[in-house]
Amino acid sequence: MTLSLYDLAGNDERRRFSPYCWRTRLALAHKGLAVETIPWRFTDKEAIAPSGQTKVPVLVDDDEWIADSWTIAIHLERKYPERPSLFAGSQGLTKIYNSLADGLVASTFPFIALDILSVVHDKDVDYFRKSREEWVGKPLEDLVADRSSRIQGFRASLAPLRAVVAHQPFFGGDKPLYADYALFGPFQWARCASGLALLDEVGPLRGWFERMLDLFGGLGRHTPAY
Amino acid sequence: MTLSLYDLAGNDERRRFSPYCWRTRLALAHKGLAVETIPWRFTDKEAIAPSGQTKVPVLVDDDEWIADSWTIAIHLERKYPERPSLFAGSQGLTKIYNSLADGLVASTFPFIALDILSVVHDKDVDYFRKSREEWVGKPLEDLVADRSSRIQGFRASLAPLRAVVAHQPFFGGDKPLYADYALFGPFQWARCASGLALLDEVGPLRGWFERMLDLFGGLGRHTPAY
Repeated sequence: MTLSLYDLAGNDERRRFSPYCWRTRLALAHKGLAVETIPWRFTDKEAIAPSGQTKVPVLVDDDEWIADSWTIAIHLERKYPERPSLFAGSQGLTKIYNSLADGLVASTFPFIALDILSVVHDKDVDYFRKSREEWVGKPLEDLVADRSSRIQGFRASLAPLRAVVAHQPFFGGDKPLYADYALFGPFQWARCASGLALLDEVGPLRGWFERMLDLFGGLGRHTPAY
Repeated sequence: MTLSLYDLAGNDERRRFSPYCWRTRLALAHKGLAVETIPWRFTDKEAIAPSGQTKVPVLVDDDEWIADSWTIAIHLERKYPERPSLFAGSQGLTKIYNSLADGLVASTFPFIALDILSVVHDKDVDYFRKSREEWVGKPLEDLVADRSSRIQGFRASLAPLRAVVAHQPFFGGDKPLYADYALFGPFQWARCASGLALLDEVGPLRGWFERMLDLFGGLGRHTPAY
């Protein structure tokens, strides 16, 4: 098999900062599948056109194009069932983690939006600002205003996550599962694309995040932090 | 085996409204275990003293006393492994549901606190008001003020849950698991102890809740609504 992944990169090609691509990177590593990652920028729409999607991650598995991180996870589980399960046998129970991670992307964005602008590729700067300001209806500068006063509220909202990894090393239990890879995405996004410390410096979630960065030979740690 | 469950009841003995006891009721039904439920009131501390706990649920399984809904779930899974699994094999993945349900109990309480007072047993009224007002540091009347203007925000916060059951019938997938029983608790609590419609009248979460009420011959539906 030959696997290629279109992976969002910054102006520094080594900076891979998509919260969705990270789900897929770790899922592939969990399955023990080697993959060639292709640096992709927001404006490289044509490169992934065969997938029918305009966003990454896009996986090319031999001749098959698969878009969307959740669809890719299901594809990997079905096509490589003999390799370690991403879902511990329960895709149903795992869906909530995808949903919670999507929510975290949304709630994290107002904190890091302006920082992201400083790491995207030069050719993406105008596109990123315009498209994101259309979504949120205000300048990115307004979005991040007084973020330091709001960060405590954000951290408090993480209580249900914190309570889990206070009692077990990973959301999957003793070992990480796709549940962990999904939740890792937004925190890795913030680590790579923002100077804001989204998590407390100590505590159960910080401990979990550091363990996640160590997985698979430090795969997550090797991409440059902000 | 003989199983007995101390189950929070209101002034109407048939009204069983603890969000934690409902986790256990449905877990026992999932395992196909018959149980005698013993109506219990907040002030009946002595009745459950052998458990070492002052709160319900408390399960008595033959001569063993077990307190705390999550501890009870793990006990049932270990003691009755030949019966349908509550966790689909992954206790690790299930923990988040317990944690999310605990969070829902906390965020729901300010909406229904005063209504609960009207359904508790006469002998519990003073205890309930005093203990809860000490927790929250204000009169229950203040807590529920302008709740109708806050309910939309609460419903919006349920988006990650809604997204899951928009795509599958239960949080467990095609069939309900402990994940569903944990999340059912706070909504059933509100149904039995408050006149406030916590959920939208239509939509994926409402559909899920109605399916939950139908389970096991309508076990959840048989307790009186507010």
